[in-house]
Amino acid sequence: MSGKESGQVITESNVAKVLLFADAYKYFQGNGSLMREALGGKGAGLAEMTATGVNVPPGLTLTTACCRAYHNNGGTLPQGLLDQVLLLLKDVEKQVGRQLGDKENPLLLSVRSGAKFSMPGMMDTVLNLGLNDETVLSLGKMTNNERFALDSYRRLIQMFGNVVLGISKDEFEHAFVELKKKVKVENDYEMSVDHLKELIAQFKNIVLKATNKPFAQDAHEQLKQAIEAVFKSWNNARAIYYRNLNKIDHNIGTAVNIQAMVFGNLNDRSATGVCFTRDPSTGENQIYGEYLTNAQGEDVVAGIRTPKKIAMLAKELPDCYKQLVSTIGKLEKHYADMQDIEFTIENAELFILQTRTGKRTAKAALQVAVDLVKEGTINKEEALLRIEPAQLNQLLLPSFSSEQKEKSKAAGKLLAVGLNASPGAALGKIVFDPDQAEMWANKGEKVILVRIETCPDDIHGIVSAQGVVTSRGGMTSHAAVVARGMGKPCVAGCDSLVVDINAKEMRVGSKIFKEGEIISIDGATGEVFAGPIETVSPQMSASFETLLGWADDKRRLKVRANADTPDDAKVARQFGAQGIGLCRTEHMFMSQDRLPVMQAMIMAESKDERESALAKLLPMQRHDFTEIFKVMDGLPVTIRLLDPPLHEFLPKQEELLIEISQSQNKATEQIRQKRLLLEKVQELKEANPMMGLRGCRLGLVYPEINEMQVRAIFEAAAAVKKQGIVVLPEIMIPLVGEVQELIVARKHLEAVALAVMEEQKEKIDYLFGTMIEIPRACLTADEIARYADFFSFGTNDLTQMTYGFSRDDAEGKFLNRYLEGIEVGTEKIKILSNNPFEILDRKGVGKLMKLAIEYGLQTNPALKIGICGEHGGEASSIGFVEQIGLTYVSCSPFRVPLARLAAAQARIRAESNIERLIDK
Amino acid sequence: MSGKESGQVITESNVAKVLLFADAYKYFQGNGSLMREALGGKGAGLAEMTATGVNVPPGLTLTTACCRAYHNNGGTLPQGLLDQVLLLLKDVEKQVGRQLGDKENPLLLSVRSGAKFSMPGMMDTVLNLGLNDETVLSLGKMTNNERFALDSYRRLIQMFGNVVLGISKDEFEHAFVELKKKVKVENDYEMSVDHLKELIAQFKNIVLKATNKPFAQDAHEQLKQAIEAVFKSWNNARAIYYRNLNKIDHNIGTAVNIQAMVFGNLNDRSATGVCFTRDPSTGENQIYGEYLTNAQGEDVVAGIRTPKKIAMLAKELPDCYKQLVSTIGKLEKHYADMQDIEFTIENAELFILQTRTGKRTAKAALQVAVDLVKEGTINKEEALLRIEPAQLNQLLLPSFSSEQKEKSKAAGKLLAVGLNASPGAALGKIVFDPDQAEMWANKGEKVILVRIETCPDDIHGIVSAQGVVTSRGGMTSHAAVVARGMGKPCVAGCDSLVVDINAKEMRVGSKIFKEGEIISIDGATGEVFAGPIETVSPQMSASFETLLGWADDKRRLKVRANADTPDDAKVARQFGAQGIGLCRTEHMFMSQDRLPVMQAMIMAESKDERESALAKLLPMQRHDFTEIFKVMDGLPVTIRLLDPPLHEFLPKQEELLIEISQSQNKATEQIRQKRLLLEKVQELKEANPMMGLRGCRLGLVYPEINEMQVRAIFEAAAAVKKQGIVVLPEIMIPLVGEVQELIVARKHLEAVALAVMEEQKEKIDYLFGTMIEIPRACLTADEIARYADFFSFGTNDLTQMTYGFSRDDAEGKFLNRYLEGIEVGTEKIKILSNNPFEILDRKGVGKLMKLAIEYGLQTNPALKIGICGEHGGEASSIGFVEQIGLTYVSCSPFRVPLARLAAAQARIRAESNIERLIDK
Repeated sequence: MSGKESGQVITESNVAKVLLFADAYKYFQGNGSLMREALGGKGAGLAEMTATGVNVPPGLTLTTACCRAYHNNGGTLPQGLLDQVLLLLKDVEKQVGRQLGDKENPLLLSVRSGAKFSMPGMMDTVLNLGLNDETVLSLGKMTNNERFALDSYRRLIQMFGNVVLGISKDEFEHAFVELKKKVKVENDYEMSVDHLKELIAQFKNIVLKATNKPFAQDAHEQLKQAIEAVFKSWNNARAIYYRNLNKIDHNIGTAVNIQAMVFGNLNDRSATGVCFTRDPSTGENQIYGEYLTNAQGEDVVAGIRTPKKIAMLAKELPDCYKQLVSTIGKLEKHYADMQDIEFTIENAELFILQTRTGKRTAKAALQVAVDLVKEGTINKEEALLRIEPAQLNQLLLPSFSSEQKEKSKAAGKLLAVGLNASPGAALGKIVFDPDQAEMWANKGEKVILVRIETCPDDIHGIVSAQGVVTSRGGMTSHAAVVARGMGKPCVAGCDSLVVDINAKEMRVGSKIFKEGEIISIDGATGEVFAGPIETVSPQMSASFETLLGWADDKRRLKVRANADTPDDAKVARQFGAQGIGLCRTEHMFMSQDRLPVMQAMIMAESKDERESALAKLLPMQRHDFTEIFKVMDGLPVTIRLLDPPLHEFLPKQEELLIEISQSQNKATEQIRQKRLLLEKVQELKEANPMMGLRGCRLGLVYPEINEMQVRAIFEAAAAVKKQGIVVLPEIMIPLVGEVQELIVARKHLEAVALAVMEEQKEKIDYLFGTMIEIPRACLTADEIARYADFFSFGTNDLTQMTYGFSRDDAEGKFLNRYLEGIEVGTEKIKILSNNPFEILDRKGVGKLMKLAIEYGLQTNPALKIGICGEHGGEASSIGFVEQIGLTYVSCSPFRVPLARLAAAQARIRAESNIERLIDK
Repeated sequence: MSGKESGQVITESNVAKVLLFADAYKYFQGNGSLMREALGGKGAGLAEMTATGVNVPPGLTLTTACCRAYHNNGGTLPQGLLDQVLLLLKDVEKQVGRQLGDKENPLLLSVRSGAKFSMPGMMDTVLNLGLNDETVLSLGKMTNNERFALDSYRRLIQMFGNVVLGISKDEFEHAFVELKKKVKVENDYEMSVDHLKELIAQFKNIVLKATNKPFAQDAHEQLKQAIEAVFKSWNNARAIYYRNLNKIDHNIGTAVNIQAMVFGNLNDRSATGVCFTRDPSTGENQIYGEYLTNAQGEDVVAGIRTPKKIAMLAKELPDCYKQLVSTIGKLEKHYADMQDIEFTIENAELFILQTRTGKRTAKAALQVAVDLVKEGTINKEEALLRIEPAQLNQLLLPSFSSEQKEKSKAAGKLLAVGLNASPGAALGKIVFDPDQAEMWANKGEKVILVRIETCPDDIHGIVSAQGVVTSRGGMTSHAAVVARGMGKPCVAGCDSLVVDINAKEMRVGSKIFKEGEIISIDGATGEVFAGPIETVSPQMSASFETLLGWADDKRRLKVRANADTPDDAKVARQFGAQGIGLCRTEHMFMSQDRLPVMQAMIMAESKDERESALAKLLPMQRHDFTEIFKVMDGLPVTIRLLDPPLHEFLPKQEELLIEISQSQNKATEQIRQKRLLLEKVQELKEANPMMGLRGCRLGLVYPEINEMQVRAIFEAAAAVKKQGIVVLPEIMIPLVGEVQELIVARKHLEAVALAVMEEQKEKIDYLFGTMIEIPRACLTADEIARYADFFSFGTNDLTQMTYGFSRDDAEGKFLNRYLEGIEVGTEKIKILSNNPFEILDRKGVGKLMKLAIEYGLQTNPALKIGICGEHGGEASSIGFVEQIGLTYVSCSPFRVPLARLAAAQARIRAESNIERLIDK
């Protein structure tokens, strides 16, 4: 079996075989993917550990091809298979010094299924196989624990009865419960030897009744039946359902692993435990784990005894401890990553039962990756690939500790779950009014602003609050967008909250919460809790900087930030942004002091009136840009001219209607103003505002607005340049879909820029470019690129229009159904596998982007191309834009570290692809 | 000059030359485009007519290259140019028997500019050049009409002063008016010889004062100045503006045409007139025209004498008449089309001054084209190309005669102009209420329904009315869509009308119109008139059928109709539709008896309730389909499943709010219902409904609706098949953007279809396909085509999403500005040259369509591909879809003839392109 000639390359795993753990690795020449295919995940792990020289309880694996052969044979075992198993089992028996079915010295086995992919739908495990009425006695003597032996036997009958013989668990469970009632015992472990004997008798009776045959006393028969049961389980209904759901090939089959049982409860020189090679919560390089002496794994789970810290083992069983340290060190080195290991010590002999890559916190992940590089185990590129970019965000935001959160849930304090609109955790007193929020915050109170929806008038309330909750609105609602921009937690569209602004209370079901009561919100999950939950502050380690430094060395993509204020810009720079890729000017008009001027501009009845309002906005905008330019000294700043429809700066129609109707017949000036506002709001009302008068259309119809903005930009630029600051403004026109729009806008606005530069006697280096966010812009990018120095993909809008999805409507009305799946007959079919607003759609939106890049570079090879939609801060989307050759990504300041890492990973993957291509 | 060697091919027209009319055609070997380039349009026409042997007053042309040379020489005439002119002028003088400037027998000339493209911004004409203080006397003697001679002279000074010397017209006009006041004369023609002499003296004085030089008495000097003036006029501000606007190259220059004047007022054997070779209003093959004896062209315009019918000429000057008939026959043959000719008879000699293709009514165009084929002048393909497809629609709709309309306008009865939402003319009594409309119509009254906007509740009012006017809503508003579907005139979004439904009146400015007053509307122009205007009924001629028969022989594209009712289907079939390409099922739910059931379905709170409402709709839908299938026996019927968002079937939020608020505190059942409706309307409210829960998304979220529709289709199909009718249903899923949507819908609905076929024991041949109206559908068409038997491009939505334009918003808010042009500095730049909702955008939408076709055929070569957006009924868009290889177009029934013709034209053009390619 192990007589594989060296030099022969194994290229297929299609042969039905039985392999000892000890032979399999060599047989497959260490080819991991072949091993997984032939031996399944579990078998491959056992083979690899054994080959590494680790002491694994011996055993053997029936390859997946055996399973295929079984089914192709109409459900009969291939000729000679069982003989092979028994032949190899002799090796195992020899090694352990016990024989299967031997009355004096019985070998007990575990039998487990194990496919290429982990499949919870399949038969899992039969333990203690080999026990019968006789061997149970030997086991009792061997372990000096008759009760344990009997309990093991009753477990075997129960597991075997269920998974091999297909008898319902309930039957055994029912008998167990009835017996406990009868003997007046509450817990399983209180059952006496006699009770267990009676239970075994009952269990055997259940088997006899259900199968018309007595429980198999012949250990070899047990083994044969168990093997067949594993094969059959491949085609049980749950497994088929699971494979359909996960699109797993129905023909690959499962392997069977047969392994000698070892006993951590044999005596006081025996133990069982789990350990990590490093601290999974901090990443510190020291063993971390727990164990129990004279115990089995399930004793830990039962929670009767308190496990000891792994360090104790050094005192209790110093040789075993040394052996453990050395073994797990070897395993970590072999797998080149922190391991999570299960071990058993049987009579002072250490056995490793399982090893797998250890789960860890973001902090630990970072630390381990950096340490492994320093230790020479992995290189920098491997380290970079080890970190999930999204994990980095955990390190930059406050969060709730999962224990505290679970406690709170257990206490029934989870009130509602809305949309996870902006991540981070916060707690504070409920306020329903932005003025109140500001007042309390100024007094040093932490507050959470709770609104039905927010609007520009509320901005000071959002600034003052720790976090925001709204009962309406989607991922792109005002509250969500503003909160994300500020890196502030927000739960939006939480529609089970009934917010009553007037009564200053919110209701959830029958519960009422008044202003001032404390709630806690988790913006990463959308959860809202009653009462406080402690938040954990973010901690930035030296490893964080080290790793991102490596990422910066590696990546090709530049990373910029979307930043609308000097504060945003500061954060962005601090996190390593190489410029601002999107500065949205509309948010600058939304502060409490500016909104009235903006509204006056919108309400203007003549060009003169409009210009006079704009003249008031000019110094404000100039000030904004001056401050941003100062912060970004030496780095480019892309400024998008006014984009949203004007009605977004006005109060909502419903609000005005209510205010007016409530003040019937009072002809005050204030009401007259409200009436005028209402008229304007109605005039500006659109059927589909996302596709109406906004973006460059606004600037073409009302050129004075853009004129003012460009003047402010160039006046600010000239002013800071005079102070010795290096200023690199990039003017960006939104929503271009036809080249003439850009031609006219550029012609018009470059004249303004020129005029300002002449007035100020300063030459400013600037670029002029456009958002690419309309499908037609992609399709006519060759024309557009002639007049643009840069493109910046606005993938939020581009996704909306490519799919014909209004994000706000889709997320509430059908997108979840699309992601969950639609039932057709007995099937449930997913329409979308990802939310395209989170993960960039490659087939549609991505194809348009590729066309735009191809066309754009045809006519303008110097074109700079970036992305500033939310996808610019999502790791897999960054991977895609690396592939299609973008110049930079721009994302919210808090996502800059994530983007730096994702960009490096994308580059590494791209290079390894290139190498693979060269190999061929 | 005429000594061109034969055999030499003229390949360029860049040489500054002077050519006699008589030599030019030969010189350019009849190459029309070269002639237009070198001689301008006017010069080319004169040369061609002369060459055809027609008696044209002799003259010569200075080529456009002379103009270019003039400007390149810094504004001086090229060396020797004037000598050439004078040399060739001798030929002209010889032929006419008069000499320029000769005191006894003076030759008079006209000097005209004439560029390749007609340019209204340029200098036009100087007439009577050659008159001076002496020759005016000879002219008086020669014509025996001193008054005429003097009047000609004062006109020369005036025209020359203005167009050559650049003196403002006002100066001459002012002097004229003052003199008329002084001599107490009202009309120009009442001026006596003495008055004219005084006027001439004053005019000469104006010239002297303005130019510091007396009016040039030397005829040759006049000619030189006139030539230079023409050249200069090429670069005047108006001409430059015009060329910028029309994107005409500034370097092509203008030609100058110098031609001998002839006098229709020389004596009684002289005359002047215009005639058409055929009747321009009916197309009948007989000369049609008017003339005046002893008169000049301007006498006709002055309207003092009533012109005579051309037939009279046969009696008055029979030889001339014969000559005229023969000449114009020759011209018609030469140009192979009906001609509009200006002629002058001078002393019994016929001169042709101009010929051009005659403008004609749609009816005449058809008749002429068919007759010319029968006469052997042109072939069928040429005939098909002669008809503007859009003209055909005139023949199918009632219209106002243009005289009546002009009269009405002159009487100040044009009230307002809205959007031309659905063509056709109608008059009737104003009604503001659909019930009232129905009542009056049942009594035999003609009514026009006037509403702010219409909604599904109004449908019976629209059916009853002759036409519809709305004060709000765009080209895709409910009123517009429904009216177009019915082929009924509609003026939409007529916002200068203030409609007061409660007061039952509408106001336009200060005018008030009450219910019952008569208005007339022209849906083709958007005009609304006070009072009645007679409509002209459509007349269908035999030529109509003949021509469309030729079109059918020629075209490759199939033509189907968009038809939602059996009546639509009948009209469609009558007009030659080869099937229904789009049957919108939603309109079927909008009739008064069905809407409440539909609303009940929407309001259902459980699946059971919904299914019970659907069970009521099922027999209604089945009946609709049964009737349509019967009409379309043997032809395919594409049925689109429910598409619009559900709120379109409910009353508007505002209406409900008002109704509820007006009935405060009355807790009647009706109000309770309204409240429930309001809640549902608010629940269904979407930010951008066009991109929300509609189309296939609706059918996936509420599968019962589609289930009912498919059941109705197949039950109907089975029923009619049992009657021997050939039924070919095609199920169409709207708004697919992701293949999984289609997969799930198809899987689900084919199961229903199969079930019905089994129940009914009838096998129905059907196709299953999808609309392609989302950009992503185009981009992933390869995947979608695997599950679709056909694609039908919905170019309305596809245009909206490709541009990011919501049509309703865009047309009101910025599209017109885009089409008119945006001012930048002194320029006005158009953003769009066509409304993409009228004419298919080829660069963006068209590119997506091409991709979709390419991808779709890759995976499904048998795919049928059509178009059912409004572009399917627009001629140039039909031309485009012929090019990209569509299978069929589908348009509204009334546009089917247009589409048949346009499809044939497209095919002819495609073939001639192919031939041209083969030639090369």
